[in-house]
Amino acid sequence: MIIALASINPTVGKINYNFKKIKENVNKAIHRRADLIIFPELSICGYPPLDLLDKKTFIDECIEVLNDVAKLSEKISIVVGGITRDTDMIGTNNFNSAIFCEKGKIKSIHNKTLLPNYDVFDEVRYFEPSKNIFLSQIGGKKIGISICEDAWNDKDFWMHRKYENDPAEFIVKQKPDFLINISASPFSIGKEKIRTEMFSQIAKKNNLPIIFVNQVGANTDLIFDGGCKVYDSNGNLIIASNRFDEQLVFFDTEKKYDILDYNPADDIEDIFNALVLGIRDYCSKSRFDKIVLGLSGGIDSALVAALAASAIKPKNVLCVLMPSQYSSEGSVKDSQKLINNLGVNGTSIPINMLFNEYKTSLKNEFAGTNEDIAEENLQSRIRGNLLMALSNKFGYLLLATGNKSEFATGYATLYGDMCGGLAPISDLYKTTVYKLARFMNKESEIIPEEIIQKIPSAELKPNQTDQDTLPPYEILDKILYQYIEESKEEEEIIKSGFERELVRKTLKMVDRAEYKRKQAAPGLKVTNKAFGTGRRFPIVQGWR
Amino acid sequence: MIIALASINPTVGKINYNFKKIKENVNKAIHRRADLIIFPELSICGYPPLDLLDKKTFIDECIEVLNDVAKLSEKISIVVGGITRDTDMIGTNNFNSAIFCEKGKIKSIHNKTLLPNYDVFDEVRYFEPSKNIFLSQIGGKKIGISICEDAWNDKDFWMHRKYENDPAEFIVKQKPDFLINISASPFSIGKEKIRTEMFSQIAKKNNLPIIFVNQVGANTDLIFDGGCKVYDSNGNLIIASNRFDEQLVFFDTEKKYDILDYNPADDIEDIFNALVLGIRDYCSKSRFDKIVLGLSGGIDSALVAALAASAIKPKNVLCVLMPSQYSSEGSVKDSQKLINNLGVNGTSIPINMLFNEYKTSLKNEFAGTNEDIAEENLQSRIRGNLLMALSNKFGYLLLATGNKSEFATGYATLYGDMCGGLAPISDLYKTTVYKLARFMNKESEIIPEEIIQKIPSAELKPNQTDQDTLPPYEILDKILYQYIEESKEEEEIIKSGFERELVRKTLKMVDRAEYKRKQAAPGLKVTNKAFGTGRRFPIVQGWR
Repeated sequence: MIIALASINPTVGKINYNFKKIKENVNKAIHRRADLIIFPELSICGYPPLDLLDKKTFIDECIEVLNDVAKLSEKISIVVGGITRDTDMIGTNNFNSAIFCEKGKIKSIHNKTLLPNYDVFDEVRYFEPSKNIFLSQIGGKKIGISICEDAWNDKDFWMHRKYENDPAEFIVKQKPDFLINISASPFSIGKEKIRTEMFSQIAKKNNLPIIFVNQVGANTDLIFDGGCKVYDSNGNLIIASNRFDEQLVFFDTEKKYDILDYNPADDIEDIFNALVLGIRDYCSKSRFDKIVLGLSGGIDSALVAALAASAIKPKNVLCVLMPSQYSSEGSVKDSQKLINNLGVNGTSIPINMLFNEYKTSLKNEFAGTNEDIAEENLQSRIRGNLLMALSNKFGYLLLATGNKSEFATGYATLYGDMCGGLAPISDLYKTTVYKLARFMNKESEIIPEEIIQKIPSAELKPNQTDQDTLPPYEILDKILYQYIEESKEEEEIIKSGFERELVRKTLKMVDRAEYKRKQAAPGLKVTNKAFGTGRRFPIVQGWR
Repeated sequence: MIIALASINPTVGKINYNFKKIKENVNKAIHRRADLIIFPELSICGYPPLDLLDKKTFIDECIEVLNDVAKLSEKISIVVGGITRDTDMIGTNNFNSAIFCEKGKIKSIHNKTLLPNYDVFDEVRYFEPSKNIFLSQIGGKKIGISICEDAWNDKDFWMHRKYENDPAEFIVKQKPDFLINISASPFSIGKEKIRTEMFSQIAKKNNLPIIFVNQVGANTDLIFDGGCKVYDSNGNLIIASNRFDEQLVFFDTEKKYDILDYNPADDIEDIFNALVLGIRDYCSKSRFDKIVLGLSGGIDSALVAALAASAIKPKNVLCVLMPSQYSSEGSVKDSQKLINNLGVNGTSIPINMLFNEYKTSLKNEFAGTNEDIAEENLQSRIRGNLLMALSNKFGYLLLATGNKSEFATGYATLYGDMCGGLAPISDLYKTTVYKLARFMNKESEIIPEEIIQKIPSAELKPNQTDQDTLPPYEILDKILYQYIEESKEEEEIIKSGFERELVRKTLKMVDRAEYKRKQAAPGLKVTNKAFGTGRRFPIVQGWR
């Protein structure tokens, strides 16, 4: 039996477009004489559809297109992820289903049992859990079909399990010949390694081949790294397609495969691929073909410019310098060099006159006060206003250039440098920003060394550096990581080797910046815990 | 037996502060010789604590304070809402509990069974459902204890139920002498009526008195209207405290009560009370004592100013006029009159010079283009920048003045008039804005009639009115209501009597403005479906 694994890049809600992708892949697989083709979780509507699932017409159309997919199964069997209805009139009435189609018809429907409802996931909001689990048959083989989370609760793999039941175990007990897992499993640093180990271990302990097909592509903040994999009954990986791109690969169940020596790419390379995909998909799926951003002369905006130039045509990227009286000479020169290196467009709009005009306008109100954060933010917001004016006038997507260390501590100006449709590096700590810049410079200097070497500064007042306000980034980022990603508390972080005052001050900054982050542009998630939909703290609260 | 019902206003996460409130009420109830005092759901930590529940130290402190509450129960029994731990190491490990304390100790723990996970609720993210339901005893009486949602699944009351089980029914079968329901049930228009009818019906059909105690106060976007109620075994309301304020009322189980002729306030009065509470609590719980906002001369900002002046001292409210070349003379004059009526502070910062300076700065970039939305937004963002400068310099809370019709259609400028820490009327349709203005003018003219009568205009270009872009508000709001609150689709809305083109254009505007709303200030929720955490649509999507 030949099985096609199709990792496709659907757009959320664009059902007919997604159907075309499914059809193209079905036709290619028929051409290659495959017996079965497997698509990712919710391929028909794209993942995550969120509250679109509350729309009756949306569900209707998903089901209509599912029937069209079934009709494609005359010459090839199909397993596809889609929505089906529960008819008991209790709860949501929707299932997240893997639908097995054969001979032009739906043969069986396998519903997701474990509905993730943590971090960025809200599936209990949308779906009912499966009420029964059973095997299907194809060409004399018994197949178990599971959906993403259903395979993520193995009691031997996880110390702390999220659910009582293990549907994968239940399937295994029914003695299938192989187990299929269709997923929309988003990228985060290190996840590919865990995912691979987990499936390998489940395959090995149950002496059961596993076929894994993941959604690829970015939908707003979530980047799906995709990938098609086959594990043999010893848990060895025998097929592993590329990730971060659509894939159609074939697995011949009768063929003897060599064991792959699979090493996921290093974290920084993965992040690079993820962010480029994230920016590219945001543009194409929202129909932006041009990007604008402000270049400050610092490393964050330089990196975002370089990523943008990797994601879309460099000539469609506009970098805007907006120097003020506090901008160092180097900032302008280095930015010019970066623009040349990238082959993007550049322009300069000085902000001194505007800044002075604001100060004049506010003279009466501000009489008797000293220049402080208010004047600093004014400058940042002038830049935001100029960039948004360009975006509004010409249809550019504005990218915000803030990093995670800044978003965490609130070292960013709301409605200023936080302006933008997308914040590509808002989930990268400053220390990771440096690593990614070095990675991009591996072959040749893309981001000028001067920018990488420069002491970080917002350049909003004379001789300012980030470290006037923030701890050194090497220390700050380690504290932030423990607090945000590991959910550790003050005492625990102090015990790990940091000064009490420093930890206390840092955590306070994080807690107090919640209101800013709530109004931030969506960021591309690359860590286990990104700001945005996966981290939900109250704005008004009195804890610490 | 005398039972005290204590509707308190806790602050999320401010555990010691909440404990003090509990203790004060316990002492008052002891003084009144009450046998039992009942507090709302999650009184100890405030509702909703959201991801604070991921912090181990937070849970530890909640439990520690719960033990302190138990110690208060030497002279009076206590039912209090708090967190307790599940110890099975599967899932979240937290319960949302009603804890019954007696003789200085915890006597029984009653966990919430139905965990709401729709609209603004994410309780499956945080809690495990109860594993058993049982009665407790006090002074020879058997009491059933339920938490909020546990009573909201009656099969005779709801046509479409959300859950299979009905814990209230399960309790009833065990024949309690009365049923307690402790809640953190947020306000929305019309909910008080439904809530009252529902409890009345459950009491009547089961021949069972019901005691209801609700959290009061606002936490960020959610306003809890509070209220303490007692229904007799015929479903008659015999005690109904005020809402929108802390209450401590007493119910004597041996006394014969008259049946109340209870009519909830009209919707507009409820909205007024809710918004004033929402603004006041946002200020006090975030430690703001001053409010700033921009007065355009239109009704939205006038209403927000009037609400602000009702929520905090008028002398702590600063209204800023920022006239441009497009501002009508009336706008300035009417705003001045409003400022006088309210007794708030006013100032004026003209923006013409700034607007001209921006156009000069952008001359090269904008060469050969006509003035359009870019120039309109520039003006709005200049105003946003000025207001934020005042906020940053002097510590004002900036209120955004946009209404729901604007937020829905995107007829608002991101980083412009959308700037602010809180958007008090972002869940009010324009037609409701008028009604509320009229309501506030009932006794005497607070909002000048000229402002109410004025044709709505953003005044960002010559002779502009809202209806250049939007359908008349009476029509628009009806379409929006069906789409947003009733989840109706294009065809259904057209069938209800609106032109196809108009409906199509309106829904498209709503869908396309998602990216703006995602970056909006939190709004005060007053409808069944507010923008914000309760409405989660993808930004990047291809549906319609």
